Amino acid sequence: VLATPDEQLTYLKKGLSELIREEDLRERIILRAKEGRPLRVKAGFDPTAPDLHLGHTVLLRKMKHFQDLGHQIVFLIGATTAMIGDPSGRNATRPPLTLEEIEANTETYKSQVFKILDPEKTEIRFNSEWLASLSFLDVIRLCSKYTVARLLERDDFSKRYVAGTPISVHELLYPLAQAYDSVALQCDVEMGGTDQKFNLLVGREIQKDYGQPPQIVATVPILEGLDGEKKMSKSLGNYVGITEAPEVMFAKIMRISDSLMWRWYELLTDTSMVEIAAVQERIARGDMNPMQAKLELARTIVADFHSPADAGRAAEEFNRVVRQKEAPAEIESAPLPEGVAGPNGINVDKLIAKTGLAPSVSEARRKRESGAVEINGARVSDLVIPVSGRELLIQVGRKWKRVLL
Amino acid sequence: VLATPDEQLTYLKKGLSELIREEDLRERIILRAKEGRPLRVKAGFDPTAPDLHLGHTVLLRKMKHFQDLGHQIVFLIGATTAMIGDPSGRNATRPPLTLEEIEANTETYKSQVFKILDPEKTEIRFNSEWLASLSFLDVIRLCSKYTVARLLERDDFSKRYVAGTPISVHELLYPLAQAYDSVALQCDVEMGGTDQKFNLLVGREIQKDYGQPPQIVATVPILEGLDGEKKMSKSLGNYVGITEAPEVMFAKIMRISDSLMWRWYELLTDTSMVEIAAVQERIARGDMNPMQAKLELARTIVADFHSPADAGRAAEEFNRVVRQKEAPAEIESAPLPEGVAGPNGINVDKLIAKTGLAPSVSEARRKRESGAVEINGARVSDLVIPVSGRELLIQVGRKWKRVLL
Repeated sequence: VLATPDEQLTYLKKGLSELIREEDLRERIILRAKEGRPLRVKAGFDPTAPDLHLGHTVLLRKMKHFQDLGHQIVFLIGATTAMIGDPSGRNATRPPLTLEEIEANTETYKSQVFKILDPEKTEIRFNSEWLASLSFLDVIRLCSKYTVARLLERDDFSKRYVAGTPISVHELLYPLAQAYDSVALQCDVEMGGTDQKFNLLVGREIQKDYGQPPQIVATVPILEGLDGEKKMSKSLGNYVGITEAPEVMFAKIMRISDSLMWRWYELLTDTSMVEIAAVQERIARGDMNPMQAKLELARTIVADFHSPADAGRAAEEFNRVVRQKEAPAEIESAPLPEGVAGPNGINVDKLIAKTGLAPSVSEARRKRESGAVEINGARVSDLVIPVSGRELLIQVGRKWKRVLL
Repeated sequence: VLATPDEQLTYLKKGLSELIREEDLRERIILRAKEGRPLRVKAGFDPTAPDLHLGHTVLLRKMKHFQDLGHQIVFLIGATTAMIGDPSGRNATRPPLTLEEIEANTETYKSQVFKILDPEKTEIRFNSEWLASLSFLDVIRLCSKYTVARLLERDDFSKRYVAGTPISVHELLYPLAQAYDSVALQCDVEMGGTDQKFNLLVGREIQKDYGQPPQIVATVPILEGLDGEKKMSKSLGNYVGITEAPEVMFAKIMRISDSLMWRWYELLTDTSMVEIAAVQERIARGDMNPMQAKLELARTIVADFHSPADAGRAAEEFNRVVRQKEAPAEIESAPLPEGVAGPNGINVDKLIAKTGLAPSVSEARRKRESGAVEINGARVSDLVIPVSGRELLIQVGRKWKRVLL
């Protein structure tokens, strides 16, 4: 059981981009424990056609961690702002939603987020509950608490202001409305992506103005997609959707690089940093193949969004189709060629050229860059890969080679 | 009867600081006449403890001119903003008013402004009628119509922004709320002081956004006080209060300089510019003493705020006390001394020294600058005064001299 403030902090800090401030969170944990009540932890979501991928689950996972520790999470639906859309009409991709659409989208949301969150312990709220009844006088009072100059310090605002790109006055009201949500919900903690940091900090100031202790701000990082470089997104095609079939999810996850695998362990699982470090050490010692860790990651993630049984079947399918069926029964084995291993690891291009899988280093490089090189079942795009495990099962197009380490 | 659009324009333009735009006003007059309805003409007022002086009546007088022509004026009480006061708490001089205080102040207002406006033809409205029922969504929609950058162009905002003096977000909402007042009232014209020009122009934009033709904007100048230099104000002591006793008002008005007299004719009476020019010509020809024109001005203004009978009594009292009682029965007469008249008029210091009312020119200057010199019943502070009338009745302290021109 995780119980002490320090143990809680260690669990909650895992994977966070920023925590403002750790010492405040510790104090608040202690204070609320004394009062015999949980922390109130908010994260806000737009109810616009939710179709979540793993990138969206980083925040949900962190909400779950608070939930795991017995704290009260609030899943806040930004109904009011969604009903407005973009009133300036400049942004055609934000049409106003009707109440019916918001309710329908909320149901879709629930079916997806409750794969991670415990529905019994999740408070779902709509900010229209308090924003819709704000009068003009209330809005004036709220707006009197903050200065124009401080809002224009927000990164996107300041860039647009300097560039002369119009900022409509209503856009200044959104951060204040979001801050007022924290007042209405009496939040102890607010979470969001790193791009939300400014708005979350406004919440601290506004809470103080309304006589509440300022919320602790926790931001989660942006998840890189399958390519390991760009932000995971539908439009870039580098995503794993949480409603995709178990086999599809499993195979996609097995494609990521080893370094990305550790990042995903941190951001997409409940595995503690201590456990992750232990696995890394086993691999470094050669007691474990990175492939095993990746299979375990894929199994864990698929189980989260489907079931352990589904994950098991997906693993078998992956093994059968991707590894066994594609690899010939007999693969020629060879020792590691001279001159391919350096202090940082193995030079993939030289490895491929010297094992005869490509006619030259430059041709090897071309193949690697075009995505035709897989080692131990995972596509390799890096020039240098770490030495780990006992063998390298290399596939370049239809050619295979097993290199013993 | 003033009836044609051109005649109306001539009457309405008198004394205006700016009209945006004259051609639009002409067209609107023609349009509304065709539709058989009057122009709707708004001016807004704060219901904060009204105790009006002549400076405030410049705007009321212009409202009366529209009223004289059969147009519908709207006396708008800014109840909503008054109920807010200054929510930032920085401005202690703007405490929030209760509804009772606003109602009491409104009654005081009426008793004062109806000395100029016709109560039967004046629409008194409170902006709380429509602002109080604006929802958060309505406010967002309103605010989406205007950009932060354009609001920050307002002179006082831009100065504060550059100087780093805080501008609270709610201050940006006030011009938009004022503009929305014009939408709610479907105004054809909005009037205000020159300091209101920016806000009045915002009204034009917002009306267009709400599908209304943009209002015509008319600003009236700031009235100079008794000193002829500084803005009339209670705190500077250079004011004529509209509830002051007839004799006090009369005597104060008689103290102003000749040049200020013409300004006051323009801004504080219904006398047309043609009539004013005719009087000026008579004085220039020597057919009339400026004193006569000033007595007429004082009589007109006092009659406005009291009655013609009161004005007559005040004029008699002024004559008796200020002119007859103070001036000795026999005053020595003298011709105009050599060397005191130049192309721009008479040098007062030389005049006083050469007529023996002061021992030297420098002493004469000291007396003039300390306010001890009166000519034809009015205090003289200018070094050079125009030559007009048939005589100069000069008083320096207790010494008198009559100079024949």
